[in-house]
Amino acid sequence: MSESDLVTFGETMLRLSPPDQERLEDAREFEVRAGGAESNVAIAAQRLGTPATWMSKVPETPLGRRTVGELRQHGIDTEVVWSHRGRQGTYYLERAGEPRGTNVIYDRENTAVSTAKARELDLDTIKDARVFFTTGITPALSSTLRDTTASLLKAAREGGTTTAFDFNYRRKLWSPEEAEETMTHLFPGIDVLVIAARDARTVLGFEGDPRQLAHKLGSQYEFETVVVTRGSEGAIGWHDSVVHEQPAYDTDTVSRIGTGDAFTGAFIARRLEGDDVPTALEYAAATAALKRTIPGDVAQVTEEEVEAVVREGGEALSR
Amino acid sequence: MSESDLVTFGETMLRLSPPDQERLEDAREFEVRAGGAESNVAIAAQRLGTPATWMSKVPETPLGRRTVGELRQHGIDTEVVWSHRGRQGTYYLERAGEPRGTNVIYDRENTAVSTAKARELDLDTIKDARVFFTTGITPALSSTLRDTTASLLKAAREGGTTTAFDFNYRRKLWSPEEAEETMTHLFPGIDVLVIAARDARTVLGFEGDPRQLAHKLGSQYEFETVVVTRGSEGAIGWHDSVVHEQPAYDTDTVSRIGTGDAFTGAFIARRLEGDDVPTALEYAAATAALKRTIPGDVAQVTEEEVEAVVREGGEALSR
Amino acid sequence: MSESDLVTFGETMLRLSPPDQERLEDAREFEVRAGGAESNVAIAAQRLGTPATWMSKVPETPLGRRTVGELRQHGIDTEVVWSHRGRQGTYYLERAGEPRGTNVIYDRENTAVSTAKARELDLDTIKDARVFFTTGITPALSSTLRDTTASLLKAAREGGTTTAFDFNYRRKLWSPEEAEETMTHLFPGIDVLVIAARDARTVLGFEGDPRQLAHKLGSQYEFETVVVTRGSEGAIGWHDSVVHEQPAYDTDTVSRIGTGDAFTGAFIARRLEGDDVPTALEYAAATAALKRTIPGDVAQVTEEEVEAVVREGGEALSR
Amino acid sequence: MSESDLVTFGETMLRLSPPDQERLEDAREFEVRAGGAESNVAIAAQRLGTPATWMSKVPETPLGRRTVGELRQHGIDTEVVWSHRGRQGTYYLERAGEPRGTNVIYDRENTAVSTAKARELDLDTIKDARVFFTTGITPALSSTLRDTTASLLKAAREGGTTTAFDFNYRRKLWSPEEAEETMTHLFPGIDVLVIAARDARTVLGFEGDPRQLAHKLGSQYEFETVVVTRGSEGAIGWHDSVVHEQPAYDTDTVSRIGTGDAFTGAFIARRLEGDDVPTALEYAAATAALKRTIPGDVAQVTEEEVEAVVREGGEALSR
Amino acid sequence: MSESDLVTFGETMLRLSPPDQERLEDAREFEVRAGGAESNVAIAAQRLGTPATWMSKVPETPLGRRTVGELRQHGIDTEVVWSHRGRQGTYYLERAGEPRGTNVIYDRENTAVSTAKARELDLDTIKDARVFFTTGITPALSSTLRDTTASLLKAAREGGTTTAFDFNYRRKLWSPEEAEETMTHLFPGIDVLVIAARDARTVLGFEGDPRQLAHKLGSQYEFETVVVTRGSEGAIGWHDSVVHEQPAYDTDTVSRIGTGDAFTGAFIARRLEGDDVPTALEYAAATAALKRTIPGDVAQVTEEEVEAVVREGGEALSR
Amino acid sequence: MSESDLVTFGETMLRLSPPDQERLEDAREFEVRAGGAESNVAIAAQRLGTPATWMSKVPETPLGRRTVGELRQHGIDTEVVWSHRGRQGTYYLERAGEPRGTNVIYDRENTAVSTAKARELDLDTIKDARVFFTTGITPALSSTLRDTTASLLKAAREGGTTTAFDFNYRRKLWSPEEAEETMTHLFPGIDVLVIAARDARTVLGFEGDPRQLAHKLGSQYEFETVVVTRGSEGAIGWHDSVVHEQPAYDTDTVSRIGTGDAFTGAFIARRLEGDDVPTALEYAAATAALKRTIPGDVAQVTEEEVEAVVREGGEALSR
Ligand SMILES: [Ca+2]
Ligand SMILES: [Ca+2]
Ligand SMILES: [Ca+2]
Ligand SMILES: [Ca+2]
Ligand SMILES: [Ca+2]
Ligand SMILES: [Ca+2]
Ligand SMILES: [Ca+2]
Ligand SMILES: [Ca+2]
Ligand SMILES: [Ca+2]
Ligand SMILES: [Ca+2]
Ligand SMILES: [Ca+2]
Ligand SMILES: [Ca+2]
Ligand code: NI
Ligand code: NI
Ligand code: NI
Ligand code: NI
Ligand code: NI
Ligand code: NI
Ligand code: NI
Ligand code: NI
Ligand code: NI
Ligand code: NI
Ligand code: NI
Ligand code: NI
Ligand code: NI
Ligand code: NI
Ligand code: NI
Ligand code: NI
Ligand code: NI
Ligand code: NI
Repeated sequence: MSESDLVTFGETMLRLSPPDQERLEDAREFEVRAGGAESNVAIAAQRLGTPATWMSKVPETPLGRRTVGELRQHGIDTEVVWSHRGRQGTYYLERAGEPRGTNVIYDRENTAVSTAKARELDLDTIKDARVFFTTGITPALSSTLRDTTASLLKAAREGGTTTAFDFNYRRKLWSPEEAEETMTHLFPGIDVLVIAARDARTVLGFEGDPRQLAHKLGSQYEFETVVVTRGSEGAIGWHDSVVHEQPAYDTDTVSRIGTGDAFTGAFIARRLEGDDVPTALEYAAATAALKRTIPGDVAQVTEEEVEAVVREGGEALSR
Repeated sequence: MSESDLVTFGETMLRLSPPDQERLEDAREFEVRAGGAESNVAIAAQRLGTPATWMSKVPETPLGRRTVGELRQHGIDTEVVWSHRGRQGTYYLERAGEPRGTNVIYDRENTAVSTAKARELDLDTIKDARVFFTTGITPALSSTLRDTTASLLKAAREGGTTTAFDFNYRRKLWSPEEAEETMTHLFPGIDVLVIAARDARTVLGFEGDPRQLAHKLGSQYEFETVVVTRGSEGAIGWHDSVVHEQPAYDTDTVSRIGTGDAFTGAFIARRLEGDDVPTALEYAAATAALKRTIPGDVAQVTEEEVEAVVREGGEALSR
Repeated sequence: MSESDLVTFGETMLRLSPPDQERLEDAREFEVRAGGAESNVAIAAQRLGTPATWMSKVPETPLGRRTVGELRQHGIDTEVVWSHRGRQGTYYLERAGEPRGTNVIYDRENTAVSTAKARELDLDTIKDARVFFTTGITPALSSTLRDTTASLLKAAREGGTTTAFDFNYRRKLWSPEEAEETMTHLFPGIDVLVIAARDARTVLGFEGDPRQLAHKLGSQYEFETVVVTRGSEGAIGWHDSVVHEQPAYDTDTVSRIGTGDAFTGAFIARRLEGDDVPTALEYAAATAALKRTIPGDVAQVTEEEVEAVVREGGEALSR
Repeated sequence: MSESDLVTFGETMLRLSPPDQERLEDAREFEVRAGGAESNVAIAAQRLGTPATWMSKVPETPLGRRTVGELRQHGIDTEVVWSHRGRQGTYYLERAGEPRGTNVIYDRENTAVSTAKARELDLDTIKDARVFFTTGITPALSSTLRDTTASLLKAAREGGTTTAFDFNYRRKLWSPEEAEETMTHLFPGIDVLVIAARDARTVLGFEGDPRQLAHKLGSQYEFETVVVTRGSEGAIGWHDSVVHEQPAYDTDTVSRIGTGDAFTGAFIARRLEGDDVPTALEYAAATAALKRTIPGDVAQVTEEEVEAVVREGGEALSR
Repeated sequence: MSESDLVTFGETMLRLSPPDQERLEDAREFEVRAGGAESNVAIAAQRLGTPATWMSKVPETPLGRRTVGELRQHGIDTEVVWSHRGRQGTYYLERAGEPRGTNVIYDRENTAVSTAKARELDLDTIKDARVFFTTGITPALSSTLRDTTASLLKAAREGGTTTAFDFNYRRKLWSPEEAEETMTHLFPGIDVLVIAARDARTVLGFEGDPRQLAHKLGSQYEFETVVVTRGSEGAIGWHDSVVHEQPAYDTDTVSRIGTGDAFTGAFIARRLEGDDVPTALEYAAATAALKRTIPGDVAQVTEEEVEAVVREGGEALSR
Repeated sequence: MSESDLVTFGETMLRLSPPDQERLEDAREFEVRAGGAESNVAIAAQRLGTPATWMSKVPETPLGRRTVGELRQHGIDTEVVWSHRGRQGTYYLERAGEPRGTNVIYDRENTAVSTAKARELDLDTIKDARVFFTTGITPALSSTLRDTTASLLKAAREGGTTTAFDFNYRRKLWSPEEAEETMTHLFPGIDVLVIAARDARTVLGFEGDPRQLAHKLGSQYEFETVVVTRGSEGAIGWHDSVVHEQPAYDTDTVSRIGTGDAFTGAFIARRLEGDDVPTALEYAAATAALKRTIPGDVAQVTEEEVEAVVREGGEALSR
């Protein structure tokens, strides 16, 4: 059994993408990487000093082993149920500038993880952790996972483990109505909510500026902490009825996939280290900025680099 | 509507493979190619001078378009039903020498093609062709395709189109019992059968040396022609109650995937050109030998190259 | 014989370019792609729904087959005279930012296409099409092609086929004086002229702003339609004595090679679909903008993507 | 603290090699992999089901983190002292056939690991393991490591941990005389010795056929087990005064680097699983054969694959 | 013995860098290039028409030969002492945008060049040249090289050879105090000093704007010429007590490594051609601008390209 | 002016080849290398210690500079006439095993070198050398080069320079009759002839075994030395009316292109060093064997490696 401070649960896919900005339609080779919101968050937290474990159910195939191996390479522990049924989820990523725009094609149906039941998983790992984290993608993947998500949040609550949740609405997976119905039922089990301002509006039907969104969400559902993200415009933290604003750092973006996960992972790590909400938001924003300079989904950063960004906003060529 | 002499129907997958002999488990990049028995056969026939069309049902996605585009690049016509439901099939190929051995992982469930019904397809294309071809992989993919295969063979018969069929048993798709049950029901609609000696034994339960297998199959099911293949040991052709032996050519193999399809496509093309069975077998063996020197599933050969092999067994560096 | 609505005639070269922005002088590997104005136009039109055929004369070599195969992959039909004499044209492309600037080295002398005579080509294909298209590059390649261009335009006129022509002056192929002399002799056979404002000025000696250039050209040579392009500043359409302005869409450019061909192909396709000139210009500009986000010469776009740009100017990451 | 059954200690280098069989002198790119005898052994053992940990001292730099990350990817645990002094060792590998021959250039002086003292390391990890393993490379790297090797073997003995040792003489690191002097002083602390027949002869001065070498070594130094390896001719196991011969499996070799480590890791794993010496040798030989089909230093195998080789000597293309 | 107009002396390393902006920590392949300030300067000068030779001491290994071969490829002559002791220096380059920033990890201790003594080198090559050049990196590498640098400058003075020196302070090699102490002792032997404004301030303790820095340096140490560089803000030349300002050209930067060396090499070449200081600065700035569009350390430019930038600031796509 | 012992004259092309054994018809990328018989010979000789210069006429373009740069990288001097007219020759190489066979497509018409006249070249370089070398490819390229070849051989004779010539018949360049007519006219100016046994038979019409061919050629044309090569069966040297046989060394071949040139270059170098014919043949065969293990046309070997092959026939992995 793992002894991590942070435990996350969710699906990690193999991401297949043509080099540079070539079209999928014309590709002769794909770059292969592992990517998933919950493992991304675990890695970002680990890089900032919080021991982290990713839990999932994975096919016992070379593709499943490849996925797990890459997550281990990035430093986290993995605790997986190896399955003889169900696929390894994949997604195809076509990077492009405007007006073409980056596009994602999911191929994640009938996966092993979509059959994961709470009773297969080691709930003690969750109960012994300090924080349990998953996202709104997990219950969107299958009705089994809808139940499992609820059960894991319940186990965390029983174990006295803080629960954190990124709303992460994916319109290619379900409708706003389904998402709202499912997620608001989960809210009572959640301590810390991260949500994009756009999702708060279009899925949950809230109105107002991001500060108001944070406040309304926090008050209505009695979260301990709410973080409302708004992409390049930064984030809002609501905690103890106080609202904190955090601008985004300027960055030379090579890949914005995973930026939000980097933010959330760093925020959780710094909160676990004892930082107050404004300080944790600052480190979260710095980690997100560094992530955007790195190819792939994962925030391969060091604590020193994050601190340097907080301190001075990056530095010039050092030799 | 196409006006090809040969029409084939089946699934073509995207094949994803690590470079050289690397392990899937360790891969950072995949080579991408289209591969499928029925399109491979169409291409081999076209390269030997027979206009050929591949029919299928394909998802209207970049992955579906990529598959079709590559087949067109190789020179054949395509006549596809574009579908808004169902996946593009993929397979993962890990090349290796012995004792590891090359391995294939299929990811071809819930594909668009598995839902293809005869009434969606342009049956006139088949009726106007001189030969219709499919393989035992097609009915193995879904019960819908089991019906569709039967309907297409029936349409061919109605149109006076010769039917050719490669038995192609795939143990990762179905059991020998299912295969035998399904295929023997299709046999009355088939004129030309190609079958591996091993499949004749382990699936159909025939016994004897390859000559005997060919003769027993031809007699029992009243085929016009039977070709029994035996890998590097060559092939046997049975026609008009006469058996012809064709040895395999020596070859420096870089990829044996698609060798049988190259053989079959060339055999059909030469028969359509009016060659007798022994001559067609000779060209088929030469095409198969050339295929083995070429990476990928497809026999990218020229008629001149095949003739040179038949004539002299290949030649030295020419400059 | 093809039954395409659009038939184009011209040279398509193999384009050899070092990866990224490396120097030709230092290259260890070249990317290989097919590129030519007339095939680019055919592909862009086909992608917007107009069946298109590219005609040419091509060496019967692996290089010639490679060129034709790539065009077929992109969806168009090809109708080529296979030649045993003459080279496959190539060009070397060195991509660079300013002040180095992208540079092109042509190696296109003594090609097969430069010997193409009208009597070798299937003129019925042109006569049965709705539009015939070529560019000012074709007559610049050889005196034989000067005659051939005139003959093809004449055949189109005889067949009642609309003729479209992109002026496309290339200073590395001939002098402004030669170009003017040749092209103005071709003008009476042309219905739709596309021309860069710069060429109208420096080769044809016209003066004025682009609106004036379009009007003067249209009036003086009695074209049915004139399109004057001006790069990132958009284009002017002149038709029925009315001038329409079309701005260019903003775009994150990865390759501007082929932008004009994308524009022209889309314009022709939409006109064939029945759109009026301003609407066709809008789709042409959208197609050109998408092209600039795509590596290579070819507008690998879908009709849906073009419509999305017209409707909303592109969209954000969709998942 | 790790709870692995097997703990190994040693240096793992970054291995830089030109693609295919290109010359270092001409290289424009290097493949990068981690490789070291002791981590190779740990990985092979882990793949066969024995939890394994690699201990070392590593620079706290991107290069050090890269090395550790790759080992974690391959499934083992790592327990490293992160150092602010000392280099990451590298080696350059030029692959070639005969008569050129594969060549290795070491660049491993002044590394972090060469300064590792026993008191920096967590000796409890060794004491709690069932087997501790290192090789003759370790004491060859520095005088500090000579002392450390002795101390670690002593700690293992104190903890009741079996000690295994691969003689692994490297002539580019020290002279036969130095090696003999150092290693024979270590022998009393070693339970299981693996040694190449050639090293037994040229470094230790023993004579006779491999069976005799095994017997003489075992008797003279009172080892529990001696394994004498002889490359493609197989291996000899000596245990309880009985000698067992194990031939090598035939294999299509793509890389023989790491073959011996694969053998040793599998032998240790199977002995820990309770197999007798002849059975463990059989699995060791099968693992070594599979390794030779895999690029890189590491035996990325599965237990099922090894068992299949033992059972049937590999199998054909499976689909 | 070489007969070059310019002779430079210093270390050239192999530079290992992951593709694109990937992290060293995650790299599977490195691009390999040779890079060193003194060879970069020699190449830039040669490209502008000044025959140039790079002198050094290099290990007689494939890595040493590779380094020398690449410099010869770029057109300069090399005159090296081949050494059987000492490493080939390497450095790892991780390219990144802000806020991550490009980072360099040196692995250049115990190199062959660090042991180079003046008596091993062919001093006549220096005495017969018109200019001798080295940088502040050279004396930073070892105490031996501190003496050697002084001896080479002395030999140049004896031979009537002009001496040029780029201050090039590297904080990863030595402290500002060590640098100041060493370099100011070398100043009396130097005719032409190139120095970054930042180094003049933080290492030498000068104050003022760049014009003042140039004037103070030139006056205090009696240089013939001083060039103060300030990155994207251009450079200042001081000569005969007159100060000349040269702005930097706009450029699409792909790699700024080597920009200063390109500037200095071009400046020296043009001064040798007889240009006055303002003209030489203009060519230097143009060469530097072109360098920034080229991957790698080296100014692979032509004289014609540099002249085109001076004349018109670069030009558009030419075809 | 160069001061090389060996001067060669001829064409060096850019060689474009798909990776691995892919087909030209399917290629998306080409590897780029310089290759030409006369530069290959110069490089092989230089690697064995003979200073060598390659003379030619080359287009003043990035492609021409690239060619020259690569030759310089490999260590030889180049003395070229830079031309503003004429192409850089290229050839396309498709590697394949049997029965496909490696194939070469020349694209070398209208090159700069084909216009090279003796009066453009620095004949003193030839006159001051100890050996001048060219091959039968040179006079095959143009009638101008036929004259030039004769003039250069004449200049060598005037300068007292030994002349060496590799017959190198290329059937894609001219007919056997043309070759015989031209070459036998050149024979009186040649001291050392290298010729394949096959060419002696099919072009010159000689008969007999290789020993007889060597003797007949030597006697009839009064050569000083004749070497008859026969591929993997070794070579025959005839000198002073004595015949010496040299078998070929076994080798793991990755590329046999350039093997003959490696042999010839090494033979010349060793003869210049004073070795007798049998010893020179032994070194030549060893160099040829090493060449076959190296990708590309060029014998990137060291004198030590060649000596090791002569001494012991290669060695095992050294570490
Ligand atoms: Ca490869
Ligand atoms: Ca790679
Ligand atoms: Ca490839
Ligand atoms: Ca590159
Ligand atoms: Ca690229
Ligand atoms: Ca490459
Ligand atoms: Ca390879
Ligand atoms: Ca990559
Ligand atoms: Ca790239
Ligand atoms: Ca690569
Ligand atoms: Ca590529
Ligand atoms: Ca390569
Ligand atoms: Ni790449
Ligand atoms: Ni690539
Ligand atoms: Ni590649
Ligand atoms: Ni990763
Ligand atoms: Ni690769
Ligand atoms: Ni690779
Ligand atoms: Ni293909
Ligand atoms: Ni590359
Ligand atoms: Ni690359
Ligand atoms: Ni690439
Ligand atoms: Ni293309
Ligand atoms: Ni490569
Ligand atoms: Ni690895
Ligand atoms: Ni790559
Ligand atoms: Ni370079
Ligand atoms: Ni490749
Ligand atoms: Ni490659
Ligand atoms: Ni080369």
